[in-house]
Amino acid sequence: MVSTMSTPVEKQKKLLELLDDDDIRELITELGLYHPADIAEFLQFLLPHEKKLVFSVLDTKTAADVIVELDDATLDLILKDIQTKRLSEIVDDLESDDAADIIEELPDDRAQEVLDRISDEDAEEIQKLMGYDEESAGGIMQAELASVREDESVASAIEEVREMSTEVEDIHSVYVTDRMGRLVGVLPLRKMILSSPKVPVSTVMEKDPISVTVDIDQEEVARIVKKYDLVAVPVVDAAGKLVGRITIDDVVDILEEEATEDIIKLAGATDDEYAWSSSVLRSAGTRLPWLFASWIGGLFVSLIIGYFRNTLTEVVVLAAFMPVIAGMGGNVSAQSSTLVVRGIAIGSIDVKRLGSVLFRELRVGIILGVTYGILLGIVAHFLYLDIVRLWLVVGLGIFASMTIASGMGTLVPIILHKIGVDPAVASGPFISTTTDILSILMYFTLATVIILR
Amino acid sequence: MVSTMSTPVEKQKKLLELLDDDDIRELITELGLYHPADIAEFLQFLLPHEKKLVFSVLDTKTAADVIVELDDATLDLILKDIQTKRLSEIVDDLESDDAADIIEELPDDRAQEVLDRISDEDAEEIQKLMGYDEESAGGIMQAELASVREDESVASAIEEVREMSTEVEDIHSVYVTDRMGRLVGVLPLRKMILSSPKVPVSTVMEKDPISVTVDIDQEEVARIVKKYDLVAVPVVDAAGKLVGRITIDDVVDILEEEATEDIIKLAGATDDEYAWSSSVLRSAGTRLPWLFASWIGGLFVSLIIGYFRNTLTEVVVLAAFMPVIAGMGGNVSAQSSTLVVRGIAIGSIDVKRLGSVLFRELRVGIILGVTYGILLGIVAHFLYLDIVRLWLVVGLGIFASMTIASGMGTLVPIILHKIGVDPAVASGPFISTTTDILSILMYFTLATVIILR
Repeated sequence: MVSTMSTPVEKQKKLLELLDDDDIRELITELGLYHPADIAEFLQFLLPHEKKLVFSVLDTKTAADVIVELDDATLDLILKDIQTKRLSEIVDDLESDDAADIIEELPDDRAQEVLDRISDEDAEEIQKLMGYDEESAGGIMQAELASVREDESVASAIEEVREMSTEVEDIHSVYVTDRMGRLVGVLPLRKMILSSPKVPVSTVMEKDPISVTVDIDQEEVARIVKKYDLVAVPVVDAAGKLVGRITIDDVVDILEEEATEDIIKLAGATDDEYAWSSSVLRSAGTRLPWLFASWIGGLFVSLIIGYFRNTLTEVVVLAAFMPVIAGMGGNVSAQSSTLVVRGIAIGSIDVKRLGSVLFRELRVGIILGVTYGILLGIVAHFLYLDIVRLWLVVGLGIFASMTIASGMGTLVPIILHKIGVDPAVASGPFISTTTDILSILMYFTLATVIILR
Repeated sequence: MVSTMSTPVEKQKKLLELLDDDDIRELITELGLYHPADIAEFLQFLLPHEKKLVFSVLDTKTAADVIVELDDATLDLILKDIQTKRLSEIVDDLESDDAADIIEELPDDRAQEVLDRISDEDAEEIQKLMGYDEESAGGIMQAELASVREDESVASAIEEVREMSTEVEDIHSVYVTDRMGRLVGVLPLRKMILSSPKVPVSTVMEKDPISVTVDIDQEEVARIVKKYDLVAVPVVDAAGKLVGRITIDDVVDILEEEATEDIIKLAGATDDEYAWSSSVLRSAGTRLPWLFASWIGGLFVSLIIGYFRNTLTEVVVLAAFMPVIAGMGGNVSAQSSTLVVRGIAIGSIDVKRLGSVLFRELRVGIILGVTYGILLGIVAHFLYLDIVRLWLVVGLGIFASMTIASGMGTLVPIILHKIGVDPAVASGPFISTTTDILSILMYFTLATVIILR
């Protein structure tokens, strides 16, 4: 363990100097003083050949601790480069969930080679974990845990902790099962310390512990761990048998991953892009779907404007207000949809009362629409005095656009959520495009009716 | 502890029925079977008078466990309604950090009344915590922790755990100090269980534990806890003296809070809106700043279009492509800025090499710009064959817009980050407005040069 007193940047400078000087012996000594998480952070931004070099000088134990902390791009690179023998040794040292994650990254033949080289028992455990859906409780749990039968003594529980300590570090509780292996209780270490070693665990354990089943989604696992302030949650199968546990550090990663996914998806991109080392062309490719949807929407808008060409030719200055009207609608729909999408995700919106949420957002949209309608009407009046009814068209146009936007921005994510589609994925493109089309359509209809009738 | 087998929705239905039937006795019995976090979740969406009623029937211990889990709106309501005597009893039962959070919500005179009613020692501890910046390590830490001197025995450490257990539940380690009170080690419960009670703690503790100082920002605390996979981190003052600890459940809340803040700010809104019970007018008010900035930007765009009125009168169909050109620019800038803002926040972007990030995003923008430039050029050519050079203007216009957008979307958050401003707050409005202005300016300049020269 290292103190955090010297900043990561200072630490990294020292390592970079040794690397630049090609002083491998000193580099190895220095790396020995670092926390694996610091080494992983240091590796992230090195050049590919530097990454390979630094990783190659780590001893197996450290390499195992580092490999689980690597960013995706660095992990890819290391896995492509590493020899099967060394990789097998590292995997042998990993906890089962981490081992499964690493092996899933490998091509099938290489995965098999690695599994062949590690102990049968471990390989079986890992393959079992790989059988679960990657985003389910089974997919993120680890098989290593401390458990005793309810009729055993606290002394046995202590012995179990001793044995497991050689395999895993973060034991906070011993799980208690009945003779069928079904979870019946949990014995926190704190209680274990304060109990007489002779009493049966059943007399001191906490009964009916909070648990999750293997098949539930990882987001639900995170929600439960967060809600009940747990540091680990036991995982049971359909029959209630204890099969694994999920620790808080994995839950923290899931929460951050899901938040990032939501943010990025709302902007119509994917977080695959964080592999900055991946090709620019691939990056451009991942952004295409939304852009294409939005482009098609833009063509529709252009056709609508083309349809109203006569109105526009008559009063060409109408064009000057199109961007502000469409833009303000876009802004309001982004605000509404983001609040609703995130509100559903963190549970601050009551999904049973979405009607009232819609009604509320609509009223906000109307207030904003009236405000900016009057403001823009006044400005239009002063900028282009010669056209008498223009300010009315522009004012009503922006009012309509902002009201429609708040309605669409609220309604679309709600409907998507109701029909079981992730609102974060589909909301952005659909809402902004639809709002654009409806805003411009309303604007020119108003213009045609009010000015040209 | 309750099992999660019956879903929260089913549980809440039962409670709602009892509430509707006004069966208070049965409601009290039923609430006794629920986890405090479930009660808090149940309270969130009740009517105000129902919230007050349900909270009022909880015993002090449960009320204390529930009050720390309440959403902001419900907490406000309860605090306004509750009698000072009952509130003091509840606060007396809270851990110091939670007590400080609650008291900070009260008007000054009421806060003093509550502090006067609880023990001097507790009041002093709470006031000390309230002295720290709310978003610093000091502001989120709790004073309750288990600690022993390094020259004491493991048996003393066990005795310390026994004593602290009456006050706090989540003890995972005993912290070890020297005679000056400075943190020198940490003894995880797991090691304590496996050691002989007679040996001095200094021989079995982990030395140089990771710690944070009172004054660092809560985001930095969260980063450290996450990075090193900790379940709690000790807090020291400038002299290295142990003053508190921060537990993982608070860190999880911080991570979620910060992510939500980022998402909402990027869309130009504030998360104050999640107090859905607050007035619609106030909600509209919180959205005004960005909308106003964006409105001013929209007026600029309208002036630019006004300036090019002659070009537009000549070729009125130019207006038809304005929305798709500005819109695609807006999309690309939203993608780029979101990726950069979130990338900086979660550390997946190397802040030391932001130049290369900019260069990369620009290349992505150029590829996208060329693709859609060609596509739109072709469409324009088929839609409006009569104007020969139009397809060139439109194609180049969308290319320029998308390239500018990717540049602005990357550069602005980078610069904001460099000068120490949170990129999430300021990026959205500034980038979208600037991109709009530049895109339309480029488009009409191109049109004037190519078509009318």
